[in-house]
Amino acid sequence: MRIGRVDDRAVLIQPTDDRIDAASTVQVAYLSEPFSTTTAIFADFAAFRRFLATEPELRYVPTAASRLQAPVPLPGQVFGVGLNYTDHLAEIGRSGTRPLPMTFTKFPSSITGPFDPITLPTDSVDYEVELVLVIGRHADRIAAADAWDHVAGVTVGQDLSARGVQQAQQLSLSKSFRGFAPIGPWVVTSDELPDRDALPMTCWLNGEVVQKGTTADMVHNVAELLAFLSTVTALRPGDLVFTGTCAGVGFFRTPQLFLRPGDVVRSEIAGVGSLVNPCVAPSASGAYDQAFAALAVRPPLTS
Amino acid sequence: MRIGRVDDRAVLIQPTDDRIDAASTVQVAYLSEPFSTTTAIFADFAAFRRFLATEPELRYVPTAASRLQAPVPLPGQVFGVGLNYTDHLAEIGRSGTRPLPMTFTKFPSSITGPFDPITLPTDSVDYEVELVLVIGRHADRIAAADAWDHVAGVTVGQDLSARGVQQAQQLSLSKSFRGFAPIGPWVVTSDELPDRDALPMTCWLNGEVVQKGTTADMVHNVAELLAFLSTVTALRPGDLVFTGTCAGVGFFRTPQLFLRPGDVVRSEIAGVGSLVNPCVAPSASGAYDQAFAALAVRPPLTS
Repeated sequence: MRIGRVDDRAVLIQPTDDRIDAASTVQVAYLSEPFSTTTAIFADFAAFRRFLATEPELRYVPTAASRLQAPVPLPGQVFGVGLNYTDHLAEIGRSGTRPLPMTFTKFPSSITGPFDPITLPTDSVDYEVELVLVIGRHADRIAAADAWDHVAGVTVGQDLSARGVQQAQQLSLSKSFRGFAPIGPWVVTSDELPDRDALPMTCWLNGEVVQKGTTADMVHNVAELLAFLSTVTALRPGDLVFTGTCAGVGFFRTPQLFLRPGDVVRSEIAGVGSLVNPCVAPSASGAYDQAFAALAVRPPLTS
Repeated sequence: MRIGRVDDRAVLIQPTDDRIDAASTVQVAYLSEPFSTTTAIFADFAAFRRFLATEPELRYVPTAASRLQAPVPLPGQVFGVGLNYTDHLAEIGRSGTRPLPMTFTKFPSSITGPFDPITLPTDSVDYEVELVLVIGRHADRIAAADAWDHVAGVTVGQDLSARGVQQAQQLSLSKSFRGFAPIGPWVVTSDELPDRDALPMTCWLNGEVVQKGTTADMVHNVAELLAFLSTVTALRPGDLVFTGTCAGVGFFRTPQLFLRPGDVVRSEIAGVGSLVNPCVAPSASGAYDQAFAALAVRPPLTS
C-alpha cells in the first residue's frame, strides 16, 4: 500500500514505476473521514488498517505527480542518524563500528515535498539520499526483534546538509534550513518491500550517479536504530527517522562537489520511489544569511 | 496572565509566590472550548486574547500545585541553544562572543512536568536552569525588533544533560532522555515580566545555590535568537526555545558535581516561577542503558 498526500488530503496511490518525476501521472484515490489526512492515518495506523478492511469505496483518478506533497507534513519528531553506512565510514577514513548511532534532528519545519525546489542558503550544500522510517505505533523501550512492528512504512528522504554550517558545530541546524528535508513521493508499507533490510539506494546529480548503495550496509540496522532510540525517549506515531546515507557525498570527493543553482538532485530507493528536486539560488540576504554564507568549508578529515 | 495545565486541560492561574513547590496550593480556573487545551491556546494566541476579552466566566478553585502538568506537552519543535551566557563561557575557559548561536534539539518526548521526578540514566547527569520561550505566532525571517511579538510567553526549563553521552558527540540525544525537559509551572505572558531581558535565574541543589545569574548575560538575547533561528527555518506557534544556561553547572566544577538519586533540583526564574524535581535511580538496564552508563566523563576543557 502506498499512502500519499494531494491537496493536503490523504490518498492511496496505485503502484507505478519507482522512477517517477513531476511530469508523471499517478492514479490516486482520496480517503474519507476519519482518515482524510495522513496525520490521522499514522496517528493510529492499526485503526487505519481495520478501516481499509471494511472496503471503503476507493475511486482512483489520474493526477499529476507534481501535485504530490510531503506524505508526513508535520512530524512530531524527526530523528536523524549520522555515519551509519560502512561505505560512508570508509570514504571518510573511519573504519570499524561505532558503539552508538550518532543522532541529531532535522527540525520538522524543514520538511518539503518530493518535487519541490531546494533553495541553497550557502555554497556548500551537499546531498545525502536516505531511507526514512514513518513510525506507526508508540515505541518505548522496544526490543529490536519487535521494531519493524512499530514502523507504518518507509519513504525516500534527502538529508540536505550545509557543510560549512555543519563544521561550525551546528549539526542539527546545518541540516534544517527550510526545504532541507524533501520526503516522498509516498509512504510504502513495509509488507510491500521485497527485502526490507536490503533496499538499493541511488542519488543522481544532473543525471549522473553520485551515490549508489544499499540499506544492507547500515552499521546499525533499522531494528537496532529503533531499539536504541526508544531506550532514550519515546518514539511516537508520525515521527520520522532518517537512517543515514551511503558513500558518495560531495564533501568527501576530490575536488569537493556541492549543489549549484540549476542542478537537479534525484534520490531513489528501489521498491519505494524517487524524489526529484531542482536547486535554486537564495533570494534573501540578511545579516544572518551572510554569516552562514561566510562559513568556510574546511577539507574533510582523512584519518 | 499565567497559563497552565491540569488534568490535560488549560487553566488560568492567579499570581502567587514564584517559589512554589508540589505541596503548594494554587488558584486555577479551567478554560472552555475552543481554548480548553494549551495546544489550542498557543496555536492561535491572538484569537485566545480576543476570546478572553469577551470576559468568559472564570471560576477559580484551589488546586494542589502537584497537579500542574507541563504547560506545553506536545511542542512541534524544541530549539536548544548552547554556550549563550557570558559567565558560562567564562567558566569553560572561552571568552569573547560566538558569531552564531549553537543550536540543538531536546526531542519533544523529553518534556515533563514541573514537579515530576528525573530518572538518572547515567552517573553524569547535570543541571542547567534556563528561560524557555513559547512561540505564539508564526516566525519566518523575522527582524529582531519584532521578535518579542512572536512570543506568547515564557516558562522555566531544566535542560538536563547526560555529560558522558554529550561528550560522545550526541549533543541532542544527551539532552533528550525521557523526562530531561521539565518545564513550567506555567507560562507567563511577556507583558507581565518586569524586565523581560533581565530576569534573575537560580538553581538550587538540595537547598544550596549552584547557579545564580540573569538573562541579561545572554550572548545572543531573546530577540537575536529568534531572528537567527527564523533565518534558518520557520518557528511555529507552540514551539519552544530553551535559551541557554548561566554559570555554575556541575561539569565545570572541581570536583565535578552530578545528580544522584535522592537529590532535589529547584530551578527558578524570578517573576516566572519554579520547578522542583527529585532525582530517582533508573529501573531499566538493557544493553543500550549499559552502553550509555559506560560512557566515561572526560575532564572539561579549560582552554
